[in-house]
Amino acid sequence: MSHVAFIGLGNMGSGMAANLVKKGRTVRAFDLSAAALDKAQADGATKAPSAADAVKGAEAIVTMLPAGKHVRAVYEGEILAHADKGAILMDCSTIDVASAKHVVGAAEGRGLAMVDAPVSGGIAAANGGTLTFMVGGTEAAFARAEPYLAQMGKAVIRAGNAGAGQAAKICNNMLLGITMIGTCEAFNLAQRLGLDAQTFFDISSKASGQSWSMTSYCPVPGPVPTAPSNRGYEGGFAAALMLKDLKLAMEAAQGVEASTPMGAQAEAFYQLFNTLGGAPKDFSAIIKLLNGSWK
Amino acid sequence: MSHVAFIGLGNMGSGMAANLVKKGRTVRAFDLSAAALDKAQADGATKAPSAADAVKGAEAIVTMLPAGKHVRAVYEGEILAHADKGAILMDCSTIDVASAKHVVGAAEGRGLAMVDAPVSGGIAAANGGTLTFMVGGTEAAFARAEPYLAQMGKAVIRAGNAGAGQAAKICNNMLLGITMIGTCEAFNLAQRLGLDAQTFFDISSKASGQSWSMTSYCPVPGPVPTAPSNRGYEGGFAAALMLKDLKLAMEAAQGVEASTPMGAQAEAFYQLFNTLGGAPKDFSAIIKLLNGSWK
Amino acid sequence: MSHVAFIGLGNMGSGMAANLVKKGRTVRAFDLSAAALDKAQADGATKAPSAADAVKGAEAIVTMLPAGKHVRAVYEGEILAHADKGAILMDCSTIDVASAKHVVGAAEGRGLAMVDAPVSGGIAAANGGTLTFMVGGTEAAFARAEPYLAQMGKAVIRAGNAGAGQAAKICNNMLLGITMIGTCEAFNLAQRLGLDAQTFFDISSKASGQSWSMTSYCPVPGPVPTAPSNRGYEGGFAAALMLKDLKLAMEAAQGVEASTPMGAQAEAFYQLFNTLGGAPKDFSAIIKLLNGSWK
Amino acid sequence: MSHVAFIGLGNMGSGMAANLVKKGRTVRAFDLSAAALDKAQADGATKAPSAADAVKGAEAIVTMLPAGKHVRAVYEGEILAHADKGAILMDCSTIDVASAKHVVGAAEGRGLAMVDAPVSGGIAAANGGTLTFMVGGTEAAFARAEPYLAQMGKAVIRAGNAGAGQAAKICNNMLLGITMIGTCEAFNLAQRLGLDAQTFFDISSKASGQSWSMTSYCPVPGPVPTAPSNRGYEGGFAAALMLKDLKLAMEAAQGVEASTPMGAQAEAFYQLFNTLGGAPKDFSAIIKLLNGSWK
Repeated sequence: MSHVAFIGLGNMGSGMAANLVKKGRTVRAFDLSAAALDKAQADGATKAPSAADAVKGAEAIVTMLPAGKHVRAVYEGEILAHADKGAILMDCSTIDVASAKHVVGAAEGRGLAMVDAPVSGGIAAANGGTLTFMVGGTEAAFARAEPYLAQMGKAVIRAGNAGAGQAAKICNNMLLGITMIGTCEAFNLAQRLGLDAQTFFDISSKASGQSWSMTSYCPVPGPVPTAPSNRGYEGGFAAALMLKDLKLAMEAAQGVEASTPMGAQAEAFYQLFNTLGGAPKDFSAIIKLLNGSWK
Repeated sequence: MSHVAFIGLGNMGSGMAANLVKKGRTVRAFDLSAAALDKAQADGATKAPSAADAVKGAEAIVTMLPAGKHVRAVYEGEILAHADKGAILMDCSTIDVASAKHVVGAAEGRGLAMVDAPVSGGIAAANGGTLTFMVGGTEAAFARAEPYLAQMGKAVIRAGNAGAGQAAKICNNMLLGITMIGTCEAFNLAQRLGLDAQTFFDISSKASGQSWSMTSYCPVPGPVPTAPSNRGYEGGFAAALMLKDLKLAMEAAQGVEASTPMGAQAEAFYQLFNTLGGAPKDFSAIIKLLNGSWK
Repeated sequence: MSHVAFIGLGNMGSGMAANLVKKGRTVRAFDLSAAALDKAQADGATKAPSAADAVKGAEAIVTMLPAGKHVRAVYEGEILAHADKGAILMDCSTIDVASAKHVVGAAEGRGLAMVDAPVSGGIAAANGGTLTFMVGGTEAAFARAEPYLAQMGKAVIRAGNAGAGQAAKICNNMLLGITMIGTCEAFNLAQRLGLDAQTFFDISSKASGQSWSMTSYCPVPGPVPTAPSNRGYEGGFAAALMLKDLKLAMEAAQGVEASTPMGAQAEAFYQLFNTLGGAPKDFSAIIKLLNGSWK
Repeated sequence: MSHVAFIGLGNMGSGMAANLVKKGRTVRAFDLSAAALDKAQADGATKAPSAADAVKGAEAIVTMLPAGKHVRAVYEGEILAHADKGAILMDCSTIDVASAKHVVGAAEGRGLAMVDAPVSGGIAAANGGTLTFMVGGTEAAFARAEPYLAQMGKAVIRAGNAGAGQAAKICNNMLLGITMIGTCEAFNLAQRLGLDAQTFFDISSKASGQSWSMTSYCPVPGPVPTAPSNRGYEGGFAAALMLKDLKLAMEAAQGVEASTPMGAQAEAFYQLFNTLGGAPKDFSAIIKLLNGSWK
């Protein structure tokens, strides 16, 4: 009987692989970290000695890696050479659009079906199987990938052809970064003008200033109890990851001659916040830089 | 029997006064424009020869004027001197926070109750009686103003003490300006990366990029049928008015030492768009500047 | 024999008044601070009990005050009412263009000649008599003011009619703020890319990146020995004063519908730097915020 | 007798190769364009049928190519394989720092000496032999490259080790882009405030707002007769090239975690200007976008 190969067992990949096991898949896992492999084994996967070994004979291959260069290296170095022609390849990493298109193209050049399928949702969603997948690839490849992705998430959406998953994610997250800083500025200004934060929330969250950043992730403690602002800006979506996505967005914008003044400013600000030590904090903590309470 | 004085019968004030008449109020109206006065008379109000004359004996006084200097001039020049001590004063203009606080303070200095009560919603909402009022003033003044404001709108919210109505409005609208430009950038980038606008909307509107700018006022035609983008960016909320509110926000931010990098950028961009001829268009038309289709 | 009235004896005014005395003028001085008045007396001026008293019978009146509201108050409250018709009025404060025009207009309305004459140069230049005066006013008023200003500075330049002195100063200083942040960014980027700061200076100071910010006021220690960067960013032109000038520039830009995206960003950044405690440091210290060494 | 290989005979390379011939060098030239090769032959060079052929037996190799990908391709594809061990390699292209370091590293890996040596100065300077070379490489490699570069320019400066030439150039040009937009904003604001452009120039060019952008390349016609603003913003340094350099700067900044808020804004603005049709104009023409005269 065939298996699913899973390569990249970090904070995100670990939970995703475990969910495939829970849903009844036979998973052969590989990671450069022995500890990560042990964890995968404890979760019910089989250890593979290499990426090449993991993918041999697999019906499906899932990768979850840090950046485009890792994706290029492992696909071009091992996966494309050893994957069965009938396998469906799914790269769930968040990487640059150009690398995503390049690798899917290389896979198709060898007769392999592949999608780029980056996720929305953090570690908790990876563990809980509630990720959202934004998928780029042909309709046929999407149809084959969907059953696997659905076992790791709550929503699987086709964004378009190769690279479209990455494109959708970075456009969304660029907008998220902009909106979050804007929301922080608005709360800071409101409070300095004497408004109570809860009152401003009550008004603006029902008016034209509303956004997900405000109503699901409010950067001031209080109005949205589940937001990281209520727990010292710990957990959530790290500022370092927001910066990563903003960089990918700026890189993509450069490539297609798109002017993104607000996105560029958001990147410069998250870079500044990271430089000043904000990297591990939730990205909504940037309000502390704006209101002068960052130390 | 007493009456309501209404001063300032422009695009907004005209419909508001008419709604007070419809709800059974006796309205004495004043405006510098004879045509505006004729319109008010046709709507059932009585013409007053001056602001001073309009306010004499009034139980309530409503003003709807272009800017802080007009509000200061008419209150300090005529209203405060001639208003009955028992009257409730409501300034519905959108003006700078400092002027709002100043005029309310001057009114209170003479023993008069007053609120600042700027509105959210455009001409259609003024005509239809569906405005939202953001109100600053004491609880007692708010309680007295509310019945009148409720006859011109669908929601009347107390934002805090004097000036808080203006503060809430400009913080909200600053955030709106930022979010709209960000949304335009995201759609432009998405489309240049090969994503279909509707597909990006379907994904982002249910994800962390969601905002009122996207889901109620989408700047690309199609996804939100009621948005001005579907009718050539006509009607709606003019870019000139967005610029006015952003200027008020920047002025307020200067006064309280608030850093608003995104708000400042939004103001510079709307100023640029106005300079290039965009003033009369709906503010979502700024997407045409970003995508290069503005002429 | 007639005298010069000097009102406003702060850090700048004190040295300016002393220089007039040194050049042989009889100076009657006024300030709200008794200590400042004592200092002026020690420097050879006569104490006046009020601004009104100081200006009576004066051939020339010089003011050096913190902001537009103080200038309006003292001119409209005392100076214009008590000045001799033959006196020449010189406001050397750095204030908003609108107030400058307003006060000059009010003076002219009473038949008084007046110029706005803000300075370039800090406390050392005020003490040393090496200020540069940028003057707005009629040619006739300029001709009358010049001999007095020349005794307090090394250059007296007519910028145009009323308000033009203020306009020239804030346009210049807006540009200075932009150029300084840009220079800080360039040095920070160069150093992170492995370039030696002195080497980058040697190249760029002779190339198209050259500016006064680089060649006269280099924000990294070393290349320009006289720059505040070599003495812990103490002394020089305080970040708080740069922020003041950027605010005046943004206020002026709003009034004339000028889009200033870089100026707006500079203001937001200096506001942020001030909020984080940078106000008393030389304005070139903003490099510490950008390179992550600010605490 | 040995020769110099010259690869890349575009607008810049053509004049540079011609200057080497004039100074007595034997030049073997290659370009993909037959017309460019004919031009080189007319200027006294010998045509080579390929890059590989051109470099064989050369004592020195000069390349002048559009972007990093071309440099990587031609060095890795032909030059490194066919160059004599004793040759000195000089890449004068303006490319990304990472590619520059990569190619120099590859050359050194094969025992070849190489420098990156991007230029400052446009087509006129290439033709006239007045370029400035910013050079990255070992001291030994620099010493060997200098005699060749000196025959094509007026200044040859060592910026540091491999990649330092590119780093110096993009840091300088990022600062140039920022300063130019700032200068345009200052002139636009000054003129709207009623100042004469020449008067503002006279004041600011001798004060703290001074920069090369103002005193050598003034964006308003008049004050600097040789500036492109006096000839309809034709010639000079195209906005498309400024955008290219700003993109390289942003890419480099991303790689070393440098926050460049002004640089990011400059890139977004030049991208916008290019999108609106400004690409072929001199980069100082961006003043037309800011003052509303761009069509």
